[in-house]
Amino acid sequence: MINKLVNKIKQTGAPIVVGLDPMLNYIPEHVQKKAFAEYGETLEGAAEAIWQFNKEIVDKTCDLIPAVKPQIAMYEQFGIPGLMAFKKTVDYCREKDLVVIGDIKRGDIGSTSAAYAVGHLGKVQVGSKTYAPFDEDFATVNPYLGSDGVNPFTEVCRQEKKGLFILVKTSNPSSGEFQDQLIDGRPLYELVGEKVAAWGADCMGDEYSYIGAVVGATYPEMGKVLRRIMPKAYILVPGYGAQGGQGKDLVHFFNEDGLGAIVNSSRGIIAAYKQDAYAQFGPENFGDASRAAVKAMIDDIGGALADR
Amino acid sequence: MINKLVNKIKQTGAPIVVGLDPMLNYIPEHVQKKAFAEYGETLEGAAEAIWQFNKEIVDKTCDLIPAVKPQIAMYEQFGIPGLMAFKKTVDYCREKDLVVIGDIKRGDIGSTSAAYAVGHLGKVQVGSKTYAPFDEDFATVNPYLGSDGVNPFTEVCRQEKKGLFILVKTSNPSSGEFQDQLIDGRPLYELVGEKVAAWGADCMGDEYSYIGAVVGATYPEMGKVLRRIMPKAYILVPGYGAQGGQGKDLVHFFNEDGLGAIVNSSRGIIAAYKQDAYAQFGPENFGDASRAAVKAMIDDIGGALADR
Repeated sequence: MINKLVNKIKQTGAPIVVGLDPMLNYIPEHVQKKAFAEYGETLEGAAEAIWQFNKEIVDKTCDLIPAVKPQIAMYEQFGIPGLMAFKKTVDYCREKDLVVIGDIKRGDIGSTSAAYAVGHLGKVQVGSKTYAPFDEDFATVNPYLGSDGVNPFTEVCRQEKKGLFILVKTSNPSSGEFQDQLIDGRPLYELVGEKVAAWGADCMGDEYSYIGAVVGATYPEMGKVLRRIMPKAYILVPGYGAQGGQGKDLVHFFNEDGLGAIVNSSRGIIAAYKQDAYAQFGPENFGDASRAAVKAMIDDIGGALADR
Repeated sequence: MINKLVNKIKQTGAPIVVGLDPMLNYIPEHVQKKAFAEYGETLEGAAEAIWQFNKEIVDKTCDLIPAVKPQIAMYEQFGIPGLMAFKKTVDYCREKDLVVIGDIKRGDIGSTSAAYAVGHLGKVQVGSKTYAPFDEDFATVNPYLGSDGVNPFTEVCRQEKKGLFILVKTSNPSSGEFQDQLIDGRPLYELVGEKVAAWGADCMGDEYSYIGAVVGATYPEMGKVLRRIMPKAYILVPGYGAQGGQGKDLVHFFNEDGLGAIVNSSRGIIAAYKQDAYAQFGPENFGDASRAAVKAMIDDIGGALADR
């Protein structure tokens, strides 16, 4: 799957991923109204609004982008109906041949991580049958429990040719509280980065490893160091746009080959119609606004990479 | 909810929690067969087997124990039907007046943690209505992202009078890879423990804070230190029984008042009928075997506390 991701990035010229993190207040009123008219102001109604919103954005952007990243929390908050919309979104994006990165940030002791791994990336056994319950292509994983919490995920990735992005340095303001603590003079995130490189060495695709890392756009200097520590790891970079990162800050997340990083934008794309720059589209054409925002993001990052 | 938990521990004299982590291979064949006869060897069939298994164990142990801890991964691995069995289990346990600790180990950037918090502990808004989608009483949280990943959970806890157990030192063999790294001569888990104490200071119940910690039974010396660092935090102690911890190892997780810790056993209780010690019950009476195992666990821990 890392080979597919790399190939799709080369084909589209777009090292970007659209974060499908639909808060209800991002969804235009007419979409919400229609869903509530059918299902009421219920969890099912919210799930339907999310699904219709996602579908329009995917339809309007899928030819431009290699991948999407649905954030499962935004679905899970609406309970079972929300999770059904998550699954529907994953399935639809895969039908559209997009690479699906499940932003699930799971991680637990070995036997429990194994359950998450089969549920999200692999197949679960029921009697004599097997099923692929959520069937994302990649998943994000939290490393706090160490190797035996990560290994069950890498094992499933090897079997299924799928991949991971492991949290190394997250984009949020207080990520440094623990991640930046110095151990023998070096921050914890560097140690985690070294582990990611080691875990990934056994799971190589053609050019890059199946095992990637999450490093926030909001910490470009740290991205530069981590790029060197994990040369074969694809870096998933959240925090572009709404969280503050810009194309010029991101060049050091990429290798010299122009590959090695994929930049996520969520709100900046899916709620583009709410920004002044795209207001001319109006809420009715929110999908077209998202398409314009994707193009602007590709230009911003492509320009920054060309200028370096 | 921490007051309810403490009161129920006092009433039952049982500082223990039953981990409802049903692997299919723990579930007696007759239960699986019946579920598969009705739903086929499907995700729905697996979910039904899990639900019937849980129900019997809860029915046979609920008068002896204060709390249960369903591990969501074991349900999530069976997709949407599995998560429906999780919800059914949570609802049933709450009906039985048990405190429900959702072992979800979520944690993300602020806005995303907020979504998990409302989904699992709080209420989500849909138009003019609100819903409590999963409605556990406590949730486990991963601290790797720092304060702004934890604060949305504590805010919901304050509103809803619910609680958290934050991962400090986990029970698995490789937990030390990152958690034991020394920062100015002190392990990372101590820093996390200090943060738990600080986060919890603003969320006090009568005797203990709403904000507790997870510290593995497999590391009793570290438990002793962490007990002192977080005097007002309830400690959820996994790793008893199958993972290797014993009653005598656990006394230092408790305060002098005999409170302050709640010990989890999962496999040791729910799959008790598979152990030599309870083989006389047979698979048909797996619930009675679980009841006997709960009594033995209460005696083991109670005896260790009395002897100290």
